Amino acid sequence: MTDQLRPDGSLRHLLTLEHLPRAHIERLLERAEGFVRPLGARPPLSNALAGITVANLFTEPSTRTRVSFELAAKRLGAAVVNLEVQLSSRAKGESMLDTVYTLQSLHVDVMVIRDAEQGVPELVAANVAPHVSVLSAGEAHVSHPTQGLLDALTVRQHKGRFAGLAVAIVGDIRHSRVARSAYHAFRVLGVADLRIVAPPALMPEPAEFAGCARHTTLKSGLKDADVVMMLRIQRERMGQADLPDADRYFAKYGLTPERLALARPDAIVMHPQPMNRGIEIASDVADGPQSVIRDQVRNGVAVRMAVLAEVIGSRTGGA
Amino acid sequence: MTDQLRPDGSLRHLLTLEHLPRAHIERLLERAEGFVRPLGARPPLSNALAGITVANLFTEPSTRTRVSFELAAKRLGAAVVNLEVQLSSRAKGESMLDTVYTLQSLHVDVMVIRDAEQGVPELVAANVAPHVSVLSAGEAHVSHPTQGLLDALTVRQHKGRFAGLAVAIVGDIRHSRVARSAYHAFRVLGVADLRIVAPPALMPEPAEFAGCARHTTLKSGLKDADVVMMLRIQRERMGQADLPDADRYFAKYGLTPERLALARPDAIVMHPQPMNRGIEIASDVADGPQSVIRDQVRNGVAVRMAVLAEVIGSRTGGA
Amino acid sequence: MTDQLRPDGSLRHLLTLEHLPRAHIERLLERAEGFVRPLGARPPLSNALAGITVANLFTEPSTRTRVSFELAAKRLGAAVVNLEVQLSSRAKGESMLDTVYTLQSLHVDVMVIRDAEQGVPELVAANVAPHVSVLSAGEAHVSHPTQGLLDALTVRQHKGRFAGLAVAIVGDIRHSRVARSAYHAFRVLGVADLRIVAPPALMPEPAEFAGCARHTTLKSGLKDADVVMMLRIQRERMGQADLPDADRYFAKYGLTPERLALARPDAIVMHPQPMNRGIEIASDVADGPQSVIRDQVRNGVAVRMAVLAEVIGSRTGGA
Repeated sequence: MTDQLRPDGSLRHLLTLEHLPRAHIERLLERAEGFVRPLGARPPLSNALAGITVANLFTEPSTRTRVSFELAAKRLGAAVVNLEVQLSSRAKGESMLDTVYTLQSLHVDVMVIRDAEQGVPELVAANVAPHVSVLSAGEAHVSHPTQGLLDALTVRQHKGRFAGLAVAIVGDIRHSRVARSAYHAFRVLGVADLRIVAPPALMPEPAEFAGCARHTTLKSGLKDADVVMMLRIQRERMGQADLPDADRYFAKYGLTPERLALARPDAIVMHPQPMNRGIEIASDVADGPQSVIRDQVRNGVAVRMAVLAEVIGSRTGGA
Repeated sequence: MTDQLRPDGSLRHLLTLEHLPRAHIERLLERAEGFVRPLGARPPLSNALAGITVANLFTEPSTRTRVSFELAAKRLGAAVVNLEVQLSSRAKGESMLDTVYTLQSLHVDVMVIRDAEQGVPELVAANVAPHVSVLSAGEAHVSHPTQGLLDALTVRQHKGRFAGLAVAIVGDIRHSRVARSAYHAFRVLGVADLRIVAPPALMPEPAEFAGCARHTTLKSGLKDADVVMMLRIQRERMGQADLPDADRYFAKYGLTPERLALARPDAIVMHPQPMNRGIEIASDVADGPQSVIRDQVRNGVAVRMAVLAEVIGSRTGGA
Repeated sequence: MTDQLRPDGSLRHLLTLEHLPRAHIERLLERAEGFVRPLGARPPLSNALAGITVANLFTEPSTRTRVSFELAAKRLGAAVVNLEVQLSSRAKGESMLDTVYTLQSLHVDVMVIRDAEQGVPELVAANVAPHVSVLSAGEAHVSHPTQGLLDALTVRQHKGRFAGLAVAIVGDIRHSRVARSAYHAFRVLGVADLRIVAPPALMPEPAEFAGCARHTTLKSGLKDADVVMMLRIQRERMGQADLPDADRYFAKYGLTPERLALARPDAIVMHPQPMNRGIEIASDVADGPQSVIRDQVRNGVAVRMAVLAEVIGSRTGGA
């Protein structure tokens, strides 16, 4: 496991929130909060990253996440290049590393990497020069750390605390990097009552999500929850194995206003997007008064600015 | 129908030229003229849009139009992000709106939208926050307002007036957003003799293009015209229905030097591009002395700068 | 043949290194050297190209070369737009020119063109307005001039001279634009002992590569070489004609440490990338102490900055 921290303890890479010290997470949330602006206000602009080059290296398409990182970097004054790379699986690791060495030789300082295969961001981080930082923008089913941070920031803004909260993560936990990063963030930040809610076929292995209560019905899972975090379900999984089709999924696991009423009256509803409206979430919940889904997006660019500022700002002396 | 104007009468969105007051069109043309530079001169640069973010959201590929908007925004100092989104038609409206809400939450101020389906730009405009502007970069067969403006600007530069002009629009009128936006612009600007020239199969419904004379031959349609505006014909339509194949189309409706001689000696020739040379237009006309096709392109970036400057500049107080 | 030089002798286009006067090549290498920074240092930044627009017009995908040109232009303060154009082969020349005229009318100053067909960059250069420059980023099997310059710069940095060097270019010479541009560069710069090493099926026609010794084995070709320049072999050619499959190719023509030992002890190993590790080059050579492959990449962006600065800087008075 590549260490994400430099010898002086500062943050160099962000690959996973697992084992990231609480102080680092809190510092990033604090810093991100400073970049948040209300809708309609001008976003914060600075030249903190002038002369810095950020490359978005995505082998899996994700327009929203790419644009969020791109705007975060540009608003700090960095130059940004986008690469959508299609790599055949054979010799993929090697090709990826050669691409990374190329970017490094082009004086790229930060590589934002999204990949459908496990281990790629870490492989890159283990091989780049000491002055280069690697940020994961989504790795297989394993990790999506900036998503985890923006989820935590959103909860903090609306609840003001983590201790004493009941947080339910609902949906395809088994295949979700969003769930895993949220789990890591909420655990370290002190959420005591953390629940995962899923059909049996979408439950993770027993060894994972230690300390979480497992529920197979919304009725028990949402009861008195402060935070209801819905996940996207891949249509491709529908009808497979023990999984019901879309209509039956919605009937059993879709978040409707009636089911949301099981949670606390001031519960917030989150979703990482893109949403399957009418499958995992009803439109009147997605767009309703308890939804903070758009806050999540706004917080996403703030979190990415914070992470970029942190890894570059702290490298002085190390670069 | 979403109003394109703010309560104070200023321009907020640009979705269509239909019903847009003449004063607004003239103001945009005036402003655009100020951004026109001769070939080889440096383009105008400013920081009028510093801190503003423009997103090009194209669900239909169009490199030229995208680059024109991109350069217009960059030359005014805005940050630009490009999104090429492939949306399945099912639930397209909802997915599009979720993408739009995401962009809005990322502090995007202007969304430039191109879509092959009717109603999408208006749907977006009806749903964004009050400080966000939506500009259509081409909507189905319905509207292409910046193209209409650049066509009007080109005529104004070469003819100095609209009253008293004879303008012939030639080709696939039925399916053309370019024709519709030109029609709206020329009508409101006072072109009295406005003609549409097409094979019967490509004529629009009788209720459309009110006030235009309809011609099915170039011989009558081009007679003494001051402006000959050719349209692109989709090869896919060739051979269908009552439409002749490419060679026979050229023989009947292609603009050759001989046919251009039917128009006034100082007539100008326009085309929105991309051209099918040898089908709707002969190369020696496209590249000949009466062609102003490249002026149209140059005017396009000026018009887009004017529109961007207008919608952002006029939002002060409303944002 | 379009002249690459302006009437005053300054460099306007860069399409090929063939016939380019030695003084121009040396001047570009000198200028590029000034843009080289060690790994980890900030790249040089300037506003020399502020107000200038560079378009990357690639009809053949090449992420690395595109990013190298993009960063070169941005670090000099230019605006950059990227176009990936898919052109059907029918009427390709005309469509390409119309796209180019469009870019020119959008006040694009420099067009960087990559195309799989021979003659396209020259066709464009012959048709643009006098103030526009065309840079080839790879043309069929014919020319890749900035690659040739970066190869020469890399040799100069490591060997300090060209006279007296033995340079071996190894691999698919027949289909390689990299080999041709390297050949032109090294010839004019005074490399006397220039060898091409290839299986007979990949040897160029006898009329080409005049003055080069031809070798069909590495044993003779690498003997006492100062520079070993490996080429990428297309997998698609494997198994065709007289060409062995990948394993047998590696067995006969792959650069292993043992074979590299045939060259001089201080020989450097180059490769234009992307590499087929285990086919034309062993990983322990590619990543070994004699490899200067990453220097080539770093030099690539410096060379492209030099070329951009040269063609724009020298146009004063001509524009």
